[in-house]
Amino acid sequence: MDNYNVNNDTICAIATAPAGALGVIRVSGKEAISIVSVMCKAISDDTLANTSHFTTLRNKNDEIIDEVVVTLFRAPHSYTGEDVIELSCHGSSYIMKTILEQLVEQGCRMAQPGEFTQRAFLNGKMDLSQAEAVADLIAAHNKASHNVALSQLRGNVSSELSLLREKLLKLTSLLELELDFSDHEDLEFADRVELLDIAQTIEKRICTLAKSFETGQALKQGIPVAIIGKTNVGKSTLLNQLLKDDRAIVSDVHGTTRDTIEDNIDINGINFRFIDTAGIRQTSDEIEKIGINRTYQAVEKARIIIWMIENDNDLAEYEEIKKLTEGKKLIVVRNKIDKTKSEKLPDVIDIAAKYGTNIQQLEREIYNAAELTELDNNDIIITSARHYEALTHAQKSINNVISGIESQLSGDLISEDLRQTLYYLAEITGGQITTEETLSNIFKNFCIGK
Amino acid sequence: MDNYNVNNDTICAIATAPAGALGVIRVSGKEAISIVSVMCKAISDDTLANTSHFTTLRNKNDEIIDEVVVTLFRAPHSYTGEDVIELSCHGSSYIMKTILEQLVEQGCRMAQPGEFTQRAFLNGKMDLSQAEAVADLIAAHNKASHNVALSQLRGNVSSELSLLREKLLKLTSLLELELDFSDHEDLEFADRVELLDIAQTIEKRICTLAKSFETGQALKQGIPVAIIGKTNVGKSTLLNQLLKDDRAIVSDVHGTTRDTIEDNIDINGINFRFIDTAGIRQTSDEIEKIGINRTYQAVEKARIIIWMIENDNDLAEYEEIKKLTEGKKLIVVRNKIDKTKSEKLPDVIDIAAKYGTNIQQLEREIYNAAELTELDNNDIIITSARHYEALTHAQKSINNVISGIESQLSGDLISEDLRQTLYYLAEITGGQITTEETLSNIFKNFCIGK
Repeated sequence: MDNYNVNNDTICAIATAPAGALGVIRVSGKEAISIVSVMCKAISDDTLANTSHFTTLRNKNDEIIDEVVVTLFRAPHSYTGEDVIELSCHGSSYIMKTILEQLVEQGCRMAQPGEFTQRAFLNGKMDLSQAEAVADLIAAHNKASHNVALSQLRGNVSSELSLLREKLLKLTSLLELELDFSDHEDLEFADRVELLDIAQTIEKRICTLAKSFETGQALKQGIPVAIIGKTNVGKSTLLNQLLKDDRAIVSDVHGTTRDTIEDNIDINGINFRFIDTAGIRQTSDEIEKIGINRTYQAVEKARIIIWMIENDNDLAEYEEIKKLTEGKKLIVVRNKIDKTKSEKLPDVIDIAAKYGTNIQQLEREIYNAAELTELDNNDIIITSARHYEALTHAQKSINNVISGIESQLSGDLISEDLRQTLYYLAEITGGQITTEETLSNIFKNFCIGK
Repeated sequence: MDNYNVNNDTICAIATAPAGALGVIRVSGKEAISIVSVMCKAISDDTLANTSHFTTLRNKNDEIIDEVVVTLFRAPHSYTGEDVIELSCHGSSYIMKTILEQLVEQGCRMAQPGEFTQRAFLNGKMDLSQAEAVADLIAAHNKASHNVALSQLRGNVSSELSLLREKLLKLTSLLELELDFSDHEDLEFADRVELLDIAQTIEKRICTLAKSFETGQALKQGIPVAIIGKTNVGKSTLLNQLLKDDRAIVSDVHGTTRDTIEDNIDINGINFRFIDTAGIRQTSDEIEKIGINRTYQAVEKARIIIWMIENDNDLAEYEEIKKLTEGKKLIVVRNKIDKTKSEKLPDVIDIAAKYGTNIQQLEREIYNAAELTELDNNDIIITSARHYEALTHAQKSINNVISGIESQLSGDLISEDLRQTLYYLAEITGGQITTEETLSNIFKNFCIGK
């Protein structure tokens, strides 16, 4: 990939979070072996690729910094495609800082965020959509978003785009054929039927991909849920129950830490995000003050609305609520069934939030209301706004192609729109010219050491 | 080491802190290879030791969990002395949790804190003092405490104790020789001079080791410093300057994170801890309220006292302050030299805390006041209260040996005290019987994954 300014220097960074038992420092570049070999005996030009060595790491005064395990990966069979050395040291920030200082002294440069993955892209180890998936994978907190990121990392988005590209190239060559034989008017007509068919297939697939962005966003950021209802009906109690239930499941595995995501719950691997719950969890006085406006805002942002009622009189408002929540999924929940004896109503879930009664039934309802078909690793879901934007542009161009064919435009003009479609799809994988700006926008959001 | 209940199961744990670019999971035990081989193709009975493999890790439904690098270490050439596999995965807590769940499902047990190091000890890979140094090394925040921990990890404490043991055994054999020839009274006298000489050498060395505990504590916990002086003299400004100066140095290396240690500064690799500074950093009103009592308390806890004055009138209190700080190192600092023009006084450091003037000179003074001789990696410094206690006991026993020799006690009685001395020294390295309780006390303070 000669059109990029590949950095020729050797970079280093801490790849693990501080304060663990172990710390890992990564070195990548042409000088990786020569730099690290100055600091320890285990690494030399003769060291075999993919081997690990227990050794002491020394500073320039020959003082021992730490006892470490060094692992050598040789170009091109490494993460970055360059010579890579991983130093696994004791997880003290002092040690990691000291090792970095030595590496820099020996000629390394501190890596920028995402620079290892950027090099992997520049060296052709992965395309841009795969590179972006690395950041998503690290950030994934549940099964659904993890599966989507992993699928993208493993090249499923790339393969899909590659199929589309093939179809577009076929369309292009058919158009060129048409131009070559432009004297034969009868031939032209026959071709255009096939052209239209191919273009429509492409359009349909691009449309499906672009549409998947909504699901992708929901999986990545959590499906927004709002709990609405009168004061004191038990909204905050219900929220706390839902959160507690989730935390209990998580803490089954001892010794694992989970980044606390306030007011998010995981149902069957899908993340549900309770919006505006800061308000809900305030005292009821606070809620009174803020009034009904907050409810409107919450409903607007949500995809699923839980309407909480206490007794059957509340049902009088059903039509009003239905109107308010139009276009959203509405779940009606009747609370405090431990106190009042009401008749069972269809489509109303009876719970006792205080005691957790029927909470799991409610969770099933929430999950179903998300209307996500069972996702498997092969589903192609777009999660990146950048990809969505490119797909939207591509969709516009292919639609121009279609109307061009339909309105018997000349092949030259259609070709231009075809080229545009190809260009926008290529933007996603970075297969064609990718600007420095695009690269910098993508990788600046990465963590350091990846 | 058959006297211990070595666990025969296979353990696993996350060895890195959560939320990094990379996460490392460790597996150790007889079943490590068979368990991990179910989850990935790269590991089998034939896999070579010390090799790393890029592979996909799968759950029991053959779904991919992550793309990982697995490294195999074979018994006894591993950290624990058992078969060890390290799985280097993407640093998402979801992925790490999922991998752990799979490992447990396949027959692993979640490791207790320090259990890998405990196994290293039980399998004879390191002695107890080295095992304890691992935790110290991970916790070390500055050069001095790092060097002390590393020296201990590399067996310098163990070697020193081993030399003492040799001397004690020589003493024992000389005593036995004396017993064998107890009919020859002239022989006995000659031997006892040599005995006394050896015993005194041992006592002296044990005493030095025990004494080093004070330095060891200071290095590990920081040397306590108190800033005293009248209200508004600039104490909190000075503290903030000292802290700022230190932070500035630390942040020179980009991309490193340092656990924030409030009110600690690092001068030439030595940690100085400012005591009772929570009070100093309050508003002056607060200080007034709390009054002079706090000053007395701070002085008592400190090893170095910085007495801050503003003008020469304050010097009238010099004798009083000298009395108050008896037995401590006193540094007299005159603040606000930018405002007042005073004559230079011997042993008084002129600063302008607000502008950082002469702060570095003050830092040099603080460092010198610590009266630490330049430490190198070969200095043996005791940092563990457990070791100190054992040394104190050993010292008592060897003193009994000395007075026994001097007072011409019979060899049998002296032998008993010699055995005691040997026993207490052996406690440090765990070379003899170590109780479950001792082990549990040591390892419970470790982090998980080490």
